[in-house]
Amino acid sequence: MSKGKSLLPCKPLSGFQDLLPHEALAFHDAIDKITAVYRRFGFVPIDTPCIFSMESLAGETGEIDNQLYRWQQGKREVALRFDLTVPLARYVAANVNTLNFPFKRYHMGKVWRGERPQKGRYREFTQLDFDIVGTDSPLADLECLLVISEAIEALGLTDFCIRLNDRALLTGVMEGLGLADKAEDVLRSVDKLDKIGVEKVKAELMDACKAGLSADVADSVLAFINFDRSLSNAELWAHLDQSLPKNDKVELGLKRLKLLLDGAARVLPEGRLKLDPSIARGLGYYTGPVFETVLNEFPQYGSVCSGGRYDDLASRYTKRELPGVGASVGLSRLLAAVAEKAKDEAKALSIPTIILPLPGVDPIEGAVLRKALHDQGLAAELYPQSPSDWAKPSKTKAMLRYASEKNFRLAVIIGAAELENGTVQLKDLNAHEQAEVAQADLAQAIRDKIQ
Amino acid sequence: MSKGKSLLPCKPLSGFQDLLPHEALAFHDAIDKITAVYRRFGFVPIDTPCIFSMESLAGETGEIDNQLYRWQQGKREVALRFDLTVPLARYVAANVNTLNFPFKRYHMGKVWRGERPQKGRYREFTQLDFDIVGTDSPLADLECLLVISEAIEALGLTDFCIRLNDRALLTGVMEGLGLADKAEDVLRSVDKLDKIGVEKVKAELMDACKAGLSADVADSVLAFINFDRSLSNAELWAHLDQSLPKNDKVELGLKRLKLLLDGAARVLPEGRLKLDPSIARGLGYYTGPVFETVLNEFPQYGSVCSGGRYDDLASRYTKRELPGVGASVGLSRLLAAVAEKAKDEAKALSIPTIILPLPGVDPIEGAVLRKALHDQGLAAELYPQSPSDWAKPSKTKAMLRYASEKNFRLAVIIGAAELENGTVQLKDLNAHEQAEVAQADLAQAIRDKIQ
Repeated sequence: MSKGKSLLPCKPLSGFQDLLPHEALAFHDAIDKITAVYRRFGFVPIDTPCIFSMESLAGETGEIDNQLYRWQQGKREVALRFDLTVPLARYVAANVNTLNFPFKRYHMGKVWRGERPQKGRYREFTQLDFDIVGTDSPLADLECLLVISEAIEALGLTDFCIRLNDRALLTGVMEGLGLADKAEDVLRSVDKLDKIGVEKVKAELMDACKAGLSADVADSVLAFINFDRSLSNAELWAHLDQSLPKNDKVELGLKRLKLLLDGAARVLPEGRLKLDPSIARGLGYYTGPVFETVLNEFPQYGSVCSGGRYDDLASRYTKRELPGVGASVGLSRLLAAVAEKAKDEAKALSIPTIILPLPGVDPIEGAVLRKALHDQGLAAELYPQSPSDWAKPSKTKAMLRYASEKNFRLAVIIGAAELENGTVQLKDLNAHEQAEVAQADLAQAIRDKIQ
Repeated sequence: MSKGKSLLPCKPLSGFQDLLPHEALAFHDAIDKITAVYRRFGFVPIDTPCIFSMESLAGETGEIDNQLYRWQQGKREVALRFDLTVPLARYVAANVNTLNFPFKRYHMGKVWRGERPQKGRYREFTQLDFDIVGTDSPLADLECLLVISEAIEALGLTDFCIRLNDRALLTGVMEGLGLADKAEDVLRSVDKLDKIGVEKVKAELMDACKAGLSADVADSVLAFINFDRSLSNAELWAHLDQSLPKNDKVELGLKRLKLLLDGAARVLPEGRLKLDPSIARGLGYYTGPVFETVLNEFPQYGSVCSGGRYDDLASRYTKRELPGVGASVGLSRLLAAVAEKAKDEAKALSIPTIILPLPGVDPIEGAVLRKALHDQGLAAELYPQSPSDWAKPSKTKAMLRYASEKNFRLAVIIGAAELENGTVQLKDLNAHEQAEVAQADLAQAIRDKIQ
């Protein structure tokens, strides 16, 4: 219709991505596996709109502010959601009389942030969060650690470690050092220990524009976070219990960590959980346990699943106090790791069997055969061969090339002679073997090959 | 943190919706069932960005123009996608050297249209499309009819009918009547037969501002579309074959319809497909078979799945000619029908079993029991009971209310006496029966109850 016109640009905008079929399959497969774990713990899904009114933020977007996709829509200023936590707070408040608490939800959805695009970071990406809202029980915290562990295992990854700390411990220590009013600045610097090292953290802590600590106080902070990494969880906990000056927050943090470590020892694989007083998590709203997850084989991906406990999720939307705990799975990082591990495996696109009616054979016979396979619970694709009196029936070579490019394992070939005999040729495209099989025995022959 | 401030608005914007857990569960369940059908036919998923550059549309948005969510983002004018077909065209062109053709893809994603909100119609909604791109084989058309049939059956609906026509037949008839240049206007009016009836369609056809036909010509058009609905497919086809003036397009349409009707008779349930010359589909780009699907029990929902064949998908983005065929599932309409049929069934939220550690019992024992059940392949939720020395352990009554509101079928109750005996109380919350079961026998006892 527009052959005379020049062609339009067809690449996505910078920072946005098309998923090719093998990428989308891996993506959906990972989501299916992770949400199956969420579900078996009793989490239920929700959904929220991607567009929200700026009124419902009241300008308090903080760090994210200049990354928002926002515009004037009629009389309102609206924006695209930038995480799934703010929508959860709004949602819980809007449905506070309908939901039953503790409310355990998961949410998979796209979010948008106008960051500078870089490798592996997109302006439109998918988050997959889970939260338990409306309880301060440490059993909910323990459950989050279990969910993370099982979700990542469900992707076939086993060599990873959840690093655990408690913000109550951190803030208690700050208060003990007389740093209560500087806690945010201190925690922000502490959080960088892994990235920038002890010396630079100390320099930051002493920076007058940041926490501005004296060298002595900075050393006290560092003594807490820069611990001997060869200690076991029990040894490190005992060391903290002995060495830390006690106050309410320190005692609460120690008690909760003990419970989580003891519980984890009974339900998590050895070495899966590691007490780490240097974990702070930058976000201001965490108040209890905080955790990050590192793949030991791929430390360069950073934390693939992080979260923690907060005192009050939705205080800006409802007067009901809603403490909770939750985490966010870094889907793109996990998928990168899964792809890295599987890079030598053949990328099969979806299903193992294709039916190829040879040129001249009535292709409806292929549709009948496919129906028989589907009815017996077997997936099968039919090559869209045209009838012999159609404009362009496909040649056998083109069909075999298609089957090979899409990585089918088995081709069911229907020729005129086979059709007369009630048989087909079953070709193993990997082993390059071929055998004549009665149509009645085809399903079993396929099962023998693919199982 | 903001206790003194006034609360912010928490309802979604008008035309946007939150999904409650039972709605989101039904939604995900339907998507899982439908995409499983797509996959067993060999379709593969893709994804595309929700945000696109207005440059890639070159202003040709047509009817959708005033419904676009569009804004200035830096130097570019961007918009949210309003369907999944334009993104497919762009995507196929962008990846034309990577994809293997015929390219069979499905795509589930949100789209946005700033329509006036009304019951059951939202400004943000989900589409679930499938297409076969790069073939003109009628076997691909037949496959689309099968996919629709199996996808809707997968949702537990069986009483529905796919109504089939061929645009080549329609345009051939128009040309035979000398109406080639008025075909678009005529088809747009013809498409309204179901909604407004024969008389009003005739009036529209004669309207000088529309097709402006004479009464005689309007009658000829109506003679074609207003057929005897008691005829079988074979009788109606024979009637058309005898009565229609032949030209290339009419002959192509008749030949293709015959092939589809004969094929469907072999692979679709009786009565599933109905030849209907009045089906036109308003969209300009269809050129071959067109189809709509009506639930016989819920005709008020209109077509729940519509589609058709087009000559050239991506002519604005690539010089490669890409004929294809596809359809779009009306997910919200189908879900409304499924919900209507299931309205008397209890709405179980997700999984059948909850573990309730009584106050005073170490709740870690519950976590250990849950792990044992998970390891044996059984889903189980653990109520986040607090240890007895925690601030607020939950009371038994609160736990049982939670279990009842979330519609669990079975409660595994751990009391102090049971813990000592290595047993639990297994309570059937529907039958109000309770029995003491050894922990070692629990998985089997649960299976006996839920299977």
